[in-house]
Amino acid sequence: MPLSFPLHCELTNGNSMSLGKVKGRKPRWAVRASEMSKKTFNPVRAIVDSMKVEPNPKKAMISLSLGDPTVFGNLPTNDEVTRAMKEALDSGRYNGYAPSVGYQSCREAVAAYYNCPEAPLEAQDVILTSGCSQAIELALAVLANPGQNILVPRPGFSLYKTLALSMGIEVKLYNLMPEKSWEIDLKHLESLVDEKTACVIVNNPSNPCGSVFSKSHLQKILAVASRQCVPILADEIYGDMVFADCKYEPIATLSTNVPILSCGGLAKRWLVPGWRMGWILIHDRRDIFGNEIRDGLIRLSQRILGPCTIVQGALERILHRTPPDFYHNTLSILKSNADLCYAALSAIPGLQPVRPAGAMYLMVEIEIEHFPEFENDVEFTERLISEQSVFCLPATCFEYPNFFRVVITVPEEMILEACSRIQEFCEMHYQGAEGAQDLECDK
Amino acid sequence: MPLSFPLHCELTNGNSMSLGKVKGRKPRWAVRASEMSKKTFNPVRAIVDSMKVEPNPKKAMISLSLGDPTVFGNLPTNDEVTRAMKEALDSGRYNGYAPSVGYQSCREAVAAYYNCPEAPLEAQDVILTSGCSQAIELALAVLANPGQNILVPRPGFSLYKTLALSMGIEVKLYNLMPEKSWEIDLKHLESLVDEKTACVIVNNPSNPCGSVFSKSHLQKILAVASRQCVPILADEIYGDMVFADCKYEPIATLSTNVPILSCGGLAKRWLVPGWRMGWILIHDRRDIFGNEIRDGLIRLSQRILGPCTIVQGALERILHRTPPDFYHNTLSILKSNADLCYAALSAIPGLQPVRPAGAMYLMVEIEIEHFPEFENDVEFTERLISEQSVFCLPATCFEYPNFFRVVITVPEEMILEACSRIQEFCEMHYQGAEGAQDLECDK
Repeated sequence: MPLSFPLHCELTNGNSMSLGKVKGRKPRWAVRASEMSKKTFNPVRAIVDSMKVEPNPKKAMISLSLGDPTVFGNLPTNDEVTRAMKEALDSGRYNGYAPSVGYQSCREAVAAYYNCPEAPLEAQDVILTSGCSQAIELALAVLANPGQNILVPRPGFSLYKTLALSMGIEVKLYNLMPEKSWEIDLKHLESLVDEKTACVIVNNPSNPCGSVFSKSHLQKILAVASRQCVPILADEIYGDMVFADCKYEPIATLSTNVPILSCGGLAKRWLVPGWRMGWILIHDRRDIFGNEIRDGLIRLSQRILGPCTIVQGALERILHRTPPDFYHNTLSILKSNADLCYAALSAIPGLQPVRPAGAMYLMVEIEIEHFPEFENDVEFTERLISEQSVFCLPATCFEYPNFFRVVITVPEEMILEACSRIQEFCEMHYQGAEGAQDLECDK
Repeated sequence: MPLSFPLHCELTNGNSMSLGKVKGRKPRWAVRASEMSKKTFNPVRAIVDSMKVEPNPKKAMISLSLGDPTVFGNLPTNDEVTRAMKEALDSGRYNGYAPSVGYQSCREAVAAYYNCPEAPLEAQDVILTSGCSQAIELALAVLANPGQNILVPRPGFSLYKTLALSMGIEVKLYNLMPEKSWEIDLKHLESLVDEKTACVIVNNPSNPCGSVFSKSHLQKILAVASRQCVPILADEIYGDMVFADCKYEPIATLSTNVPILSCGGLAKRWLVPGWRMGWILIHDRRDIFGNEIRDGLIRLSQRILGPCTIVQGALERILHRTPPDFYHNTLSILKSNADLCYAALSAIPGLQPVRPAGAMYLMVEIEIEHFPEFENDVEFTERLISEQSVFCLPATCFEYPNFFRVVITVPEEMILEACSRIQEFCEMHYQGAEGAQDLECDK
């Protein structure tokens, strides 16, 4: 039976709702993307795509924009990590379906790795996910209904808002304070809690700030959550990635009652973000989440069935066999880059970097009043590309205008070259109060 | 600052909505799982969990329940597949983030593999996903809004309903006809279309039926979709898995106008379901989906960032280097098992198997009137476990009572043993019209 193309089935901008099966009227093609897909909006993509990014052809491009430590090859993962994957492949035991929350043995391995007396964990407290992004998605999806709200740091990682808005969850931004090493403005945080608040997202160590909260600050955050009876979604994907002079405290180790979903994964510390191995650790010592949240997470995990089984099969060995030197080495490179970058940028008129203590980032304030040619951070970073071929993300991507973010995982010589170009750029465009007058006088 | 546990923050069944920031009242803990998590419901899980599954301790358990071809080790993946993974690992090039829709080179490889004159494909027509489950999730999420409906086969794979209901999408079941090798009842299908129908799911080859639609039947399905202007979501994860006497036609190769999202992946044909490598192929030759659906899919893919990059890195080699013998060998084992199983079950009084033509399954009707001890397929299969230690899924799991599904990927001797036990079981419990009378007289 040959197919005929019905002439009435033409593409139309009209809405087909009213056509359907009404007698005498023919259906028409009118396929529309769902509301959810329209509400799924990545601000970084939108801002970056809107930038006129034509680098200076005379200078090689240096991109300090991507939170991917593998881009330049200077930070390879450890051989033990690769070896564990090959063993999992060779065993032939990890090709089939795993339970949707992950193999029991892997959940045990993760629980054992993060278990401690202050925050005990068992296998049943671990849900394996397709990367930390899915961990955050599941955590949000189980905690919040459409119409509720979540509290999100400003500046903060854009995925929180992308996911929340796509699910019809409102986002309220609480302030971080650059002058206090990006600590949370706790009064502001608490003022935002209302009867519709489903959770507070706490990101520590922070993307984009590179900041690390002290024990006492974390306790104050917990006190707010406890007073207001709001659970915490802890994004701890940069957990343990702190410089030697600083200590990382998983927030759950300090909580006596606040229920916490801690999201993490292999991505950053093991330098394999593409492998998509993430997890949720359920901390609920007062049984406030109870079976309800646990069962909800298990049900939600059945939608797409967790991470790649080969990575699951390798996970226990990755956690146990990766030599401590590997982590130390990564951190000492990051620390050294952070110091170099901080020192270089501090010396540049018109810029105010904030010293990082961990993760892979550093935020830099642009004293925008001294750069009258540029309206804002987007224009500043745009021109930095076209003149110096250096690409940093404008912090408008993180809801924080007039800053930009520098990724410090690049090779040292590249950081130095980038800083020197940024200096040249700023010297070219900086206008002190007097400088601006001079310019006027020269006319 | 020590944390104190506020006495008023106790777990309560009450709703906190009204408490919030009302002056003088203290917030209380009342964390509830979201509506979405409650609506995410896996019927197979629910039915299987409710079964009293105590196998007969005198007989080793034979499970013919799981659609996972790797369980028994008789169907290993090919060495080239494993080798491709190791090469991807060793290259060190696939540890970082891929674009959320997959590496361009991988999208090209998939497009080239499935490209044909009747259904041309380019890289931009391919979205890589975390398994075929995520492919189906994204396809549904982009096509349907809450309140719309989708048409789903009965019997059919339970994930469609699980995903749809969790998104607030209504499911309408259209009938397959066992007496016509599980062809679609096209009149029934067409009668279900209304103004809120977002898409028709066509699963070919079929789970749980093992059926394969002929070219002419597929054309008739397309004619319905074309008349009604309803796009097709084709679940073709068992594509090319058809026995030698049968031909698989990707539905898109027969469509001249109906826009189709075809979901597939490595899971079944390459025998690595745990690796979570899936894809959506966008077929839209009349530009009915247009950029709207494409952009929607890209936006949705940014939520959790696609499949494991190592599998992506291996994908082109897997597609190109897997020797044809591997596929033929798998299919000849499946065909042989299907024939053995069909012949054995056909000879059993009270059972009516339907001969499969592909995939990995076979459906068996229980003439339940001849088994008066059992209310339905769930009780029948429950007792089959407790007496014979043979586990088949009751087809109530697929919305099709009084059938059960047999998985035919198990080793031949296990199929034969299982069939012989099913025969013993049926002979024990079968009652012909006269037999039933005899039993009455015996009393």
